Amino acid sequence: MSSGKSIAVLGGGSWATAIVKMLLNNADKVHWWMRNQDAVNHIKEFHHNPNYLSSVAFEEGKIEVSTDLKAIIEAADTIVLVIPSAFIHTTFEPLDKNIFDNKTVFSAVKGIVPELHSIAARYLHKEYKVHYDRIGIICGPCHAEEVALEKLSYLTIACMDEDRANEMANQLACRYIKTSTTEDVFGTEISAVYKNVVAIACGIYHGLGYGDNFQAVLISNAIREIERFVDAVSPVHRDVKSSAYLGDLLVTGYSQFSRNRTFGNMLGKGYSVKFAQLEMSMIAEGYYAAKSILEMNKKVNVDIPIATAVFRVLYEKVSPSLEMKILADELT
Amino acid sequence: MSSGKSIAVLGGGSWATAIVKMLLNNADKVHWWMRNQDAVNHIKEFHHNPNYLSSVAFEEGKIEVSTDLKAIIEAADTIVLVIPSAFIHTTFEPLDKNIFDNKTVFSAVKGIVPELHSIAARYLHKEYKVHYDRIGIICGPCHAEEVALEKLSYLTIACMDEDRANEMANQLACRYIKTSTTEDVFGTEISAVYKNVVAIACGIYHGLGYGDNFQAVLISNAIREIERFVDAVSPVHRDVKSSAYLGDLLVTGYSQFSRNRTFGNMLGKGYSVKFAQLEMSMIAEGYYAAKSILEMNKKVNVDIPIATAVFRVLYEKVSPSLEMKILADELT
Repeated sequence: MSSGKSIAVLGGGSWATAIVKMLLNNADKVHWWMRNQDAVNHIKEFHHNPNYLSSVAFEEGKIEVSTDLKAIIEAADTIVLVIPSAFIHTTFEPLDKNIFDNKTVFSAVKGIVPELHSIAARYLHKEYKVHYDRIGIICGPCHAEEVALEKLSYLTIACMDEDRANEMANQLACRYIKTSTTEDVFGTEISAVYKNVVAIACGIYHGLGYGDNFQAVLISNAIREIERFVDAVSPVHRDVKSSAYLGDLLVTGYSQFSRNRTFGNMLGKGYSVKFAQLEMSMIAEGYYAAKSILEMNKKVNVDIPIATAVFRVLYEKVSPSLEMKILADELT
Repeated sequence: MSSGKSIAVLGGGSWATAIVKMLLNNADKVHWWMRNQDAVNHIKEFHHNPNYLSSVAFEEGKIEVSTDLKAIIEAADTIVLVIPSAFIHTTFEPLDKNIFDNKTVFSAVKGIVPELHSIAARYLHKEYKVHYDRIGIICGPCHAEEVALEKLSYLTIACMDEDRANEMANQLACRYIKTSTTEDVFGTEISAVYKNVVAIACGIYHGLGYGDNFQAVLISNAIREIERFVDAVSPVHRDVKSSAYLGDLLVTGYSQFSRNRTFGNMLGKGYSVKFAQLEMSMIAEGYYAAKSILEMNKKVNVDIPIATAVFRVLYEKVSPSLEMKILADELT
């Protein structure tokens, strides 16, 4: 079921690797950019990513992998962006501003571009004049690790252009991936970003010794906080109990795979923010997201106690045990 | 902070034991009924329940424990009912129909009285003419095991009479228990019952090898199914994302303590319903609830695919792997 259009994936991490795997169920070829030349060489020779999901084998001739960002983007009509949000701006800066002209860009980033306090969709629109009809989001709930294991998973594809949403949904769907679509580009991406901040809170509380009863209350409060914030930032009709919002929050908040939760857990156990960051080889997206959400909230000014508490722990050196006790008193 | 009123707890299981522990933080005395004479003797001599939460010590003179149901009920103004729902009818049958006159009864049962396909609140109203103003519900999310460990937990107390709700909320609140109140007696209890059916589904899928990505989608679909059902049965304004609904679902669906999830897990791994029931010494409330929910749905006729699939596995001997695959296709 190839669409005839060519597709490129930008990024070399576990989620990028999982997306390449999914796309190859339907696409004849995927163009794949990653920064790391050693990884590119390894993939060319051994047909798997040496650093992430290395059990996933890629059929020879079906991937075109390179460190040449410009060439990879130019080779494709549809671009899937899976670069950690903190690196997007510096990665794209050398490119021509018109490089995405007439291309459709799907973000699977789930993070905020810190330089602009913008979700990737808005960043692409503002910086590269990509029309919102040509910007989409690939949302979970979906751990890359379970895609590698071909465990049944559901993705939601958001795009204001229904045809483009359906096209990407069809490209990703396969035996173990079910897809659905929505027009809610802002809501799904902001919610996906926000859940990483919540996952840090889950981790901190877990590290402090709070139990499962409390985690359930935290998540119940978190989805209401996300709803308040997203409805204020982008007031369209949505049901945050859907998989793309609540499901995505659950899979991250309850997961031991989540780097954000792991990061929070270290803070709860008494490690400093600096030390916890150095210990982790992956980026905890929620670290940047907490700051950007508070920044975005200056405009809409809704009650966001969980994000505020995480921000204070991360940026204002407030003691996690104290801050989280104050937050717990606000939950219902 | 004793209210001056006397209180009785009916039931000898782990949740009953946890509730006695919580109440004793504020009450001078709790009257406690349980069926098992050996357990009563043990508690009188050693001051802890030999069968459940046995780490919890009860101060001598603060509990009046007995197997005499009539005497315990008559000694109290407020009754907390924590008997497994399958045994309520046979336990209460020998009692006078006016035994609850002028008493307030809080149900912490979270199950359906199978003889009448009724939640406990409706059963008390129909069979014992307890006015709905005098019927309340004690809702989680709350594992008894974490109460024993004094982990911070949140309870919601539902009663149409606000004063009675507040009174019970104050009686249960303590250092490690926070309480809030609602008027939604039917919604909270039906939701608490329904989550046990969902927990069986979570267990079956886990037993079949489905992963965390799928569980998140299942829970996201489940809370929407619960909302549809509860709104149809009792159409009042409620937010099912609140702790009493979503939180309660989460703590059960994600818990390894949950007997309903464990029961489902055995079915998913290939045990028969009979065998799984014999293996478990505790009652899986969701077994009866699945049947009663389908019975109740004959009146309101909403789309409840998760409860229907669980019912088919439990009562119609449909293969779990087949039934759950069909259900997965319906989820979004």
